[in-house]
Amino acid sequence: MNNAPEFGKVVIFGVGLIGGSFALGLKAAGQVEEVVGFGRSLSSLTQALDLGIIDRVGANPGQEVSDADLVLIATPVGQMPEIMARIAPYLGPQTVVTDGGSTKADVAAAARASFGDRLGQFVPAHPIAGAENSGAAAARADLYVGKKVVLTPLPENSVLNVARVRSAWEWCGALIHELTPAEHDRVFAAVSHLPHLLSFALVHDLAVRDDSELYFSFAASGFRDFTRIAASHPEMWRDVCLANRVALLEELDRYRAQLDALRDALQRGDGAQLEATFDLARTARRAWAADKQ
Amino acid sequence: MNNAPEFGKVVIFGVGLIGGSFALGLKAAGQVEEVVGFGRSLSSLTQALDLGIIDRVGANPGQEVSDADLVLIATPVGQMPEIMARIAPYLGPQTVVTDGGSTKADVAAAARASFGDRLGQFVPAHPIAGAENSGAAAARADLYVGKKVVLTPLPENSVLNVARVRSAWEWCGALIHELTPAEHDRVFAAVSHLPHLLSFALVHDLAVRDDSELYFSFAASGFRDFTRIAASHPEMWRDVCLANRVALLEELDRYRAQLDALRDALQRGDGAQLEATFDLARTARRAWAADKQ
Repeated sequence: MNNAPEFGKVVIFGVGLIGGSFALGLKAAGQVEEVVGFGRSLSSLTQALDLGIIDRVGANPGQEVSDADLVLIATPVGQMPEIMARIAPYLGPQTVVTDGGSTKADVAAAARASFGDRLGQFVPAHPIAGAENSGAAAARADLYVGKKVVLTPLPENSVLNVARVRSAWEWCGALIHELTPAEHDRVFAAVSHLPHLLSFALVHDLAVRDDSELYFSFAASGFRDFTRIAASHPEMWRDVCLANRVALLEELDRYRAQLDALRDALQRGDGAQLEATFDLARTARRAWAADKQ
Repeated sequence: MNNAPEFGKVVIFGVGLIGGSFALGLKAAGQVEEVVGFGRSLSSLTQALDLGIIDRVGANPGQEVSDADLVLIATPVGQMPEIMARIAPYLGPQTVVTDGGSTKADVAAAARASFGDRLGQFVPAHPIAGAENSGAAAARADLYVGKKVVLTPLPENSVLNVARVRSAWEWCGALIHELTPAEHDRVFAAVSHLPHLLSFALVHDLAVRDDSELYFSFAASGFRDFTRIAASHPEMWRDVCLANRVALLEELDRYRAQLDALRDALQRGDGAQLEATFDLARTARRAWAADKQ
C-alpha cells in the first residue's frame, strides 16, 4: 500500500471556515505534505498557524503557487478576481486551482478573464457546508464529511485536472456532484439565495417599526427557524446576491408572482386554493425531509 | 396544604396536540378530576383514551358542559363557531370556556354571536406552542412549560373568570400575557402567519416545477430551517389565514413593498443598500436570539 500523500504543497487563500476545514480535512486524511496560507489579516493567519491549519504563512503569492500541487481560493467571491489575476502568471504546469465560492458563473467568468491559456487548470467548486460561524476558529477536519460539493467544470478542464480537484474534496469526505456554472446558479438562486433574501427582508421589515419590541417579544419557534439565516454574514450575502443577480432576479420575480396569486386567493377568501397550495408544499417538504434521512 | 384539584370536570373539544397537551398538563399538576373529550373521529378519541389524555369520550356536548368547570375548544378555528353555538345554551353558571385558536378577533366575534349573555364566561386564549406534529400522539404534559399563552380578555369577562382561565394555563406551565384581540392578530400576522405563508409559497414554487427534483436535491440547511414551517397543517393554516385575513393582507402588502425595494436595489446593483438591509436584519435577529436565552 502506497502511503505517500496525493498532494505535496497546498496553498490556501482565505484561512476561514471553508479554507481552514479543507486544509484540516486533507491533513486528517494524510494527503498533504505542506499547507501554506494567505489571508487578509495577520491575526487570522496567526490563529490558523496556532490551530495547525496551515504550516506556514505564505510570502509571495506568485512564488508560492509556482511549485504548488493544489490551490484553494476560499475568500468571499468579491475578492476572487484580484487573487486570480495575481497568481495566474505564476501557476506551475502541475498546479490545479479550485475555489469555495457560493456562486459559479461569475467565478468562471473571472477565471476566464484571468487565467488565459491556463484556464484549464482552474476547476470551480462550491462546497455546500455553510455554518452560522465563520473564521479559522470554526474550521473542522470533518466539516465536509457527507456534505455535497458541486464541481462546475469548464470546457477547458482536462479530465485529469477535474479528477485531481475531485479527489481533494473527496479526501475531505465530500460527496461530489457536477453541474454547469449556469445550472448551479439557477438551482442555488432558488434553494439558497432567495430564501436568504426573504428571511433578511422579514426581519428588516419588523426591525424598522417603532413598536418592533412588541412584535419580537411574541415571535416563537416558527419565526426562529424561518429567520435563522437572517443572522448570516451581510457582506458575504451582498456579494452572493450581486454575483448571482440575474438568476436571483428571475427567482424573485417568480416568487413575487406566487405571492400575488396567494394574495388574490386570500383577498377573495378562497380557502380551497390556499389549502391546496399549503398541502402541496407540505407534501413536498415532508418528502424532502424523509429523503435527507 | 390543600391538595384538592382546582378543576373537577374538564371538557375538551379536539384532543390533538393542543387539547391533549392541555389535558396532560392539568393531570400532571394534579389539578383536574376528570377529562372528557370530543373529537371528529372515533380513532383519535380512542387514541386519546389509550394515552390517558381523556378519561372518557363525551356523550352529548350540551349535557357534558352543563356540569363542567372548564371547557377548552382546541379545534381548528373554522370549527369553533359551530361548537360554541352547540354548547352555549347549556353552560353551567360555574363553567368557564377558553380556546386554543391562533387568531383571536374572529374567535371573539364568534363567541359574541354564540354565547349571548354568557359571553363573560368565555376567555379567549392563544397558546404559543406549535409543533410540526399534530394529533393526540404528539400531545405532551410539558408542551406549555415556559411557553407564552396570550389571553385576550373580553370587556364582558369578570376578573374571576379571567383568573380561572389564567390559572388553568399556568398549571400547564405557561407564561401568561394579555393583549386585545386586535393587537394579538396584528402581531401574529407579522411574526407567525406571514412567515408560514412565505414558507409554504417557497416550497410550492419549487414543487410545481418539472425539474423540482434537481432543486430539492441541492437544498441544504438554510432551506431546511426556512421551510420547516411549510410542513405545518394545511387545513389549520388555511383557517388561520382566512380568519386573520385583514391583518395578514396588510402584512403581506407591506412585505411585498419591501421585496419590491430589494428587487430595485438588486436590479441596479446597489450593494450598499442590500448590505445595509441585511446588516440591520442580522443585528435585530441576533439581539432577538440573545434575548430569548
